[in-house]
Amino acid sequence: MLFAPCFVSELNLELITVGDEILLGGTFNTNEHWIANKLAAAGFRLRWASVVGDHVSDLRHQLRRAWNRADAVIVTGGLGPTHDDITRPVVASFFQDELVFRPDLMDSIRQRFEARGLKVPPGTEAMAMFPSAAEPIPNRHGSAPGIYYRIGERDLKEMFALPGVPVEMRGMFESFVIPKLTARRTTWFGSRIIRTAGIGESQLSALIGDPAGFAPVTLAYLPSIDYGVALRLDGRGDRREEVEAALDAVVAAIQSRIGVYIYTYGDQPLEVVILDEMRRRRWRLAVAESCTGGMLSARFTDVPGASDVFDRGYIVYSNEAKVQELGVELEVLEREGAVSEAAAQQMAQGALRGSGADLAASITGIAGPGGGSDLKPVGLVFIGVADRGGATVQRFQFAGDRDSNRRRSVMAALTLLWRRLRETR
Amino acid sequence: MLFAPCFVSELNLELITVGDEILLGGTFNTNEHWIANKLAAAGFRLRWASVVGDHVSDLRHQLRRAWNRADAVIVTGGLGPTHDDITRPVVASFFQDELVFRPDLMDSIRQRFEARGLKVPPGTEAMAMFPSAAEPIPNRHGSAPGIYYRIGERDLKEMFALPGVPVEMRGMFESFVIPKLTARRTTWFGSRIIRTAGIGESQLSALIGDPAGFAPVTLAYLPSIDYGVALRLDGRGDRREEVEAALDAVVAAIQSRIGVYIYTYGDQPLEVVILDEMRRRRWRLAVAESCTGGMLSARFTDVPGASDVFDRGYIVYSNEAKVQELGVELEVLEREGAVSEAAAQQMAQGALRGSGADLAASITGIAGPGGGSDLKPVGLVFIGVADRGGATVQRFQFAGDRDSNRRRSVMAALTLLWRRLRETR
Repeated sequence: MLFAPCFVSELNLELITVGDEILLGGTFNTNEHWIANKLAAAGFRLRWASVVGDHVSDLRHQLRRAWNRADAVIVTGGLGPTHDDITRPVVASFFQDELVFRPDLMDSIRQRFEARGLKVPPGTEAMAMFPSAAEPIPNRHGSAPGIYYRIGERDLKEMFALPGVPVEMRGMFESFVIPKLTARRTTWFGSRIIRTAGIGESQLSALIGDPAGFAPVTLAYLPSIDYGVALRLDGRGDRREEVEAALDAVVAAIQSRIGVYIYTYGDQPLEVVILDEMRRRRWRLAVAESCTGGMLSARFTDVPGASDVFDRGYIVYSNEAKVQELGVELEVLEREGAVSEAAAQQMAQGALRGSGADLAASITGIAGPGGGSDLKPVGLVFIGVADRGGATVQRFQFAGDRDSNRRRSVMAALTLLWRRLRETR
Repeated sequence: MLFAPCFVSELNLELITVGDEILLGGTFNTNEHWIANKLAAAGFRLRWASVVGDHVSDLRHQLRRAWNRADAVIVTGGLGPTHDDITRPVVASFFQDELVFRPDLMDSIRQRFEARGLKVPPGTEAMAMFPSAAEPIPNRHGSAPGIYYRIGERDLKEMFALPGVPVEMRGMFESFVIPKLTARRTTWFGSRIIRTAGIGESQLSALIGDPAGFAPVTLAYLPSIDYGVALRLDGRGDRREEVEAALDAVVAAIQSRIGVYIYTYGDQPLEVVILDEMRRRRWRLAVAESCTGGMLSARFTDVPGASDVFDRGYIVYSNEAKVQELGVELEVLEREGAVSEAAAQQMAQGALRGSGADLAASITGIAGPGGGSDLKPVGLVFIGVADRGGATVQRFQFAGDRDSNRRRSVMAALTLLWRRLRETR
């Protein structure tokens, strides 16, 4: 849920993604998500986004609609040399322009291949055919240059056509598109991210209250199964000092209301906050996982440099593994089951003892879809945390499917680890 | 790359995703990808997809455009009870319909809450306000029913509005949307998936040759870092027998050309194929991971029922863990390093021995971005496989970033496990 900010004075931006592979479900539209994020972080708002296939009339129609309503149009995909790469001719014809051979572009494409010791493949000339009235957007990571049209003065409109290959698109977006858009800005923009754990969006909203009081700063709630609820504050105004002061005041107000749930004033995920704090203390971490089967370990080891802190993980899926690797008592497993408070506690203690680490977490639960009972339904998860001071276990009852129960378990374990670190600070 | 199939006689379908959170980059548009996939698998083609914010006039404009050009329009998101959930009133007003209170819907919403021992929260009544001329789409996983309009006879048009919550949307899509669309089909549609491992798209394409020879069956290559390259065959025709026979003939032709790389004629991921084969043999599996840090274990344990086969995983991130948990020799680590053929071999053997499993895999490598050297660059990964017959290690040099190197390592380990199972069949 978002409290709709007012962007009256802002640019209306539209994104068109070109490619059959997205409409056929083969490829995730990661470019759309990345661009939406980059624009938001730079204080712009993507107002419309669409996907069209490699289909001349569909792209042409969408271009016309976008050009009519948006201040700037970004097109990604379809700039390659093959016959289904239609963006270059369609864009040129939309602007009643024609493609001309540009020897300078051909030279730089040729140099790119030669620098890597490759021969220029046949058909590459097509990429040097360029709309005569457009400006090329340099592509440091690939062969196809982007296409930039800038039309009008007072009622300026811009069109950026970029390749669909993410690494190429991203470089061009950051070095060309963002600066061009920023140059059109008439007001100052600033933003803040605050991340929370262990509390839901509706509870946060109740504690924080009506965001109207934060004007001119706007507040958006961005919930995520994996990272908790993030708060995003955006501020706009004529002067930088005034915007930053307004943002600082809202951050302070929010801190006073929900400070205990905030794990970072920034963009780091919770595992990075935990690793950083443990690195500062020179602590080592171990985890023991049953139902999450490696997901918690994978979250930690996803962070470059995690090896300073993360020592090992025990994925003890079978009862034998719990007994043999972690010293969980067979009697406990027989009497109370592998999904029990006692098993979670012994798992956390066993991981601490076995690894010699300073802090350990354990997860044991019933992720589903099978394995549940009246007494122990699907979604029941016990999470343990152990350090030199002892071990605690918390019981959770999640209500999702297997994937969401597992991901919520990981986030809950991260939250409990973080709380334990805060308590022992 | 896809060989564009011809869909002239097929329905033109349009998807509209509603939600500021996607345009702001907070949330991935997973629904679009899921729906595109489901439609493709059922032989339909998503022709247009777009995202609009929680903005009445933007949604209204997009609805009008979609309704004019498409045979069926699917809307997801914005069906909740809060003030920024605009889909219900906008859709009703678009069809010049009005919202009326439906006691039957309120009853079923109330029963849902009561069955879970919860009180009905204030504001829930809004979800029982329903367009008078529409049909509710039952929602087994949530409170908000979907909205279905069916207009016209010969020139039939349909509109489906579904919630944005994935589990709710998916259930309704499979049980309601797909059957409605299928009922409109005039030709028979059949499809096959073939999945491969250990070979790239261009090599596959070279071995398989020109797909024009497969007409009327069309062939698409769907490459994925995590699952290898899938081949998708679609066939259309007047009679079922004729379509299925054409598909069977193409499957046989492809099998004769690339059979050794095919791990399934179906949609199972490789980890499921491995688990099924091991279950059949009553074998147990253990893994030892360093640079992938739990990702391989998580892939296996993501599969419901994996506990029949998957016994345990050792995430041995530190050298101490490799020595203590798996019996890797300290001398080997000192002389050849943790990223070496010998370390990978001892890790796999240690996992086999420690767990008593029948098959084990190990992964040790330099995922990056740091930790590389001239001798051992980023992307160098050794993968070991051990069973009672001995252990083998294969060396890989990947060229991606940390995330892609880790994911490619997991897929390579799965591929080697699968090959070992095939060799010992």
